[in-house]
Amino acid sequence: MKLTEEFVGKIYNAIPTEEAIESAKLGVLDFLTSSYAGKDDPGVLKLLQLIELEGGLEITPLIGQSRMATPQQSALINGFLAHALDFDDVHVEVRGHPSAVLLPTLIALASNNEVSGKRFLQAYVVGVEVMARIARAISDQHYEKGWHNTGTIGVLAGALAGGYMLQFSRKQLAQALGFATTQSSGLRIHFGTETKPLHAGLAARAAVLSVQITMVNFLNNTSSFDDKGNYFDVYGVGTEGISSILLDGWNEGWKIDSPGLWYKIYPFCSAAFFGADAALHIGKLNLDEIKEVVITFSNNTDAALIHRHPKTGEEGRFSIEYIVSLILQGKSLDFQQFDSKPIDSVSEQLILKTARQNVKEQPSIARYTKVKVILNNGDIIEKVSTTPKGSPQNKVTKQELIDKCKSIVKSCELEDKWLNTIFSLDQHKNMSSFLSLL
Amino acid sequence: MKLTEEFVGKIYNAIPTEEAIESAKLGVLDFLTSSYAGKDDPGVLKLLQLIELEGGLEITPLIGQSRMATPQQSALINGFLAHALDFDDVHVEVRGHPSAVLLPTLIALASNNEVSGKRFLQAYVVGVEVMARIARAISDQHYEKGWHNTGTIGVLAGALAGGYMLQFSRKQLAQALGFATTQSSGLRIHFGTETKPLHAGLAARAAVLSVQITMVNFLNNTSSFDDKGNYFDVYGVGTEGISSILLDGWNEGWKIDSPGLWYKIYPFCSAAFFGADAALHIGKLNLDEIKEVVITFSNNTDAALIHRHPKTGEEGRFSIEYIVSLILQGKSLDFQQFDSKPIDSVSEQLILKTARQNVKEQPSIARYTKVKVILNNGDIIEKVSTTPKGSPQNKVTKQELIDKCKSIVKSCELEDKWLNTIFSLDQHKNMSSFLSLL
Repeated sequence: MKLTEEFVGKIYNAIPTEEAIESAKLGVLDFLTSSYAGKDDPGVLKLLQLIELEGGLEITPLIGQSRMATPQQSALINGFLAHALDFDDVHVEVRGHPSAVLLPTLIALASNNEVSGKRFLQAYVVGVEVMARIARAISDQHYEKGWHNTGTIGVLAGALAGGYMLQFSRKQLAQALGFATTQSSGLRIHFGTETKPLHAGLAARAAVLSVQITMVNFLNNTSSFDDKGNYFDVYGVGTEGISSILLDGWNEGWKIDSPGLWYKIYPFCSAAFFGADAALHIGKLNLDEIKEVVITFSNNTDAALIHRHPKTGEEGRFSIEYIVSLILQGKSLDFQQFDSKPIDSVSEQLILKTARQNVKEQPSIARYTKVKVILNNGDIIEKVSTTPKGSPQNKVTKQELIDKCKSIVKSCELEDKWLNTIFSLDQHKNMSSFLSLL
Repeated sequence: MKLTEEFVGKIYNAIPTEEAIESAKLGVLDFLTSSYAGKDDPGVLKLLQLIELEGGLEITPLIGQSRMATPQQSALINGFLAHALDFDDVHVEVRGHPSAVLLPTLIALASNNEVSGKRFLQAYVVGVEVMARIARAISDQHYEKGWHNTGTIGVLAGALAGGYMLQFSRKQLAQALGFATTQSSGLRIHFGTETKPLHAGLAARAAVLSVQITMVNFLNNTSSFDDKGNYFDVYGVGTEGISSILLDGWNEGWKIDSPGLWYKIYPFCSAAFFGADAALHIGKLNLDEIKEVVITFSNNTDAALIHRHPKTGEEGRFSIEYIVSLILQGKSLDFQQFDSKPIDSVSEQLILKTARQNVKEQPSIARYTKVKVILNNGDIIEKVSTTPKGSPQNKVTKQELIDKCKSIVKSCELEDKWLNTIFSLDQHKNMSSFLSLL
């Protein structure tokens, strides 16, 4: 049997466990929290202008905007919103942001189709599974070449999760995958600009189109993972050795549980969390005493941190140099440090004293970032982090996610509504109560 | 100066000649003819269903449909229409279909912006120039790996042509290019299905979005051709040696003139035109006498012809084996041979006797296809084609394009309207008369 056929067969037969569904609820809560935190981002206002050029039926809610748009428009804007502040979850195996693509896709498709809350949550679990497996199968080379997994792989996962939610046949799942693979795009050179979160929206929109165009039985090649010039040939390094990654262990464990989603407690790129954690263990220093800062990463794990000399806080979300400089100054790591304003001159000075290294390590060595501060008097302060808060080995708890939600929502009534609806979502016959939250 | 900056500077300063504008008029005529020929294609009806899911403002005409849609929807559908029958122009340097992406993009953007007929034609000239130069710069490896240039490179050309038409600043052109590069997609595995022409529509839609989102000043990386992980790094083999291809000779000659667009007289892939031409020089044979047919291509020039054993006429558009078998049977090469019906058993039998070869030749050897028929009595009939009708060395004339138009439109009134409007388009203050033709 062909790989594509076997893979969509796994999705067709997927039955996520109760545990996975409980994890999915946390994912939905954090998605909504992160999107709500980004609701006034300047990029949203720009995207709303684009809607005026097109008009359209008001079917799907735009998060925090008190208005509706077409399913495709909502996917674009809700995807952007979720990822606007880089405050949404990541997944280590995905090397990107699953929920910012998957949930806007599922919300758009649930808006004009009858879908139960349980099926919605199951589809989300399946989407995370698909995205992590494809990302592992395509190898790190894909990301390191310059692709943005959230966009490139997100569209595949969104299309398959959407197809699963709407109970597509195996053939329809393969069709949807075909449309997704042929729309796969997103370049990492846009990290640190509004276009990075736009990729989540573009992937969600393309996933919605992939599902919709399958429903009108538009024809394509349904062997996206098999034929010469297939997805892995073009975007990765071929299909050799990937079938077990894609096929083994379905319905045994779920990647939304293990290693699980990585929820963020700071609004910057998770690749910087290790270094931030190490720097936090050093704490505030007297800047006059600092001669040099050296930050060491294992195995290209700084690939996402493309800004070494950021000009704005937004670029600073992808600059370990900037983030460590904030911590050594004793500044808080909140939103205002990561907006579009130019960064301050004190941080700039400290960044000029900072060097970055990347060390090739054996696979047996756990991922780490080391921060070393050399003082003018010759003293050295050095800390290493392998398990920052949020990472799979040091997970954010349910209560901490509720606290994150509270800190953003700041309305007991709204917060109660969110928590009640989300935590009982698997009992809902349809999605209308949930959609009314947005 | 950075490559991106220099490249968009060339576009900013482009002033196409009168000759190029006259060539552009022929391109517009043939685009409209080919789109009109595809107006009842089953795929169009499917795409029209998608519009019902979204609704939207009725701004831009859908060719031959007597209805309007939003600019983005029109780009998707008009792009599909133009390429639906594979009857639209190609360009040897593009290795794809420029007009099917460029004109739907420009039509969509001209619909709610004030644009003169001359500026519209100039933008089309610039778009062909950009698409051919980028395709040459990215190297044949891009196409041969599995990308569909019409989609992947089309979006860049469409975005830049659109930006030029709307008199974007240099910075805006670089922004639009950034949005286009990060949306670039389309896989050749879909050749022979409805999704191949969909790629033209998807590229046009993405180009329209690239221009629209630039107009609301959405921010991105504007060094798409320079920074590490740039477009050529990810989609090609890097930027080494490409600056002269992208930058030299602007405003001297125009690729829409020389080598010029390749207009089609048959509705199948132009890569098969050489072989068809050779077979036509052999002509009809007695099938019982044929022992074997061997078709030889130079230098991977059969890469587009992905179907060796096509199941339908639609797949047959990308099968030299099928096309040669039709010719040797004395069948005509018209639309009905290339629709979605299963191919006949006589053709199937002949295909089973056909073998294909690809020969690596020196660059000095002109592109060719050779058809050799070995008869049961040992006789061999062999013909070679290097200049099939339509190719740059054997161009379709203006009168032949008018005849092609007449054979499709079959209404003297409509045809007169088309010819009068298109051939005077450079005199029109705005695009309304032209848009009313669609």
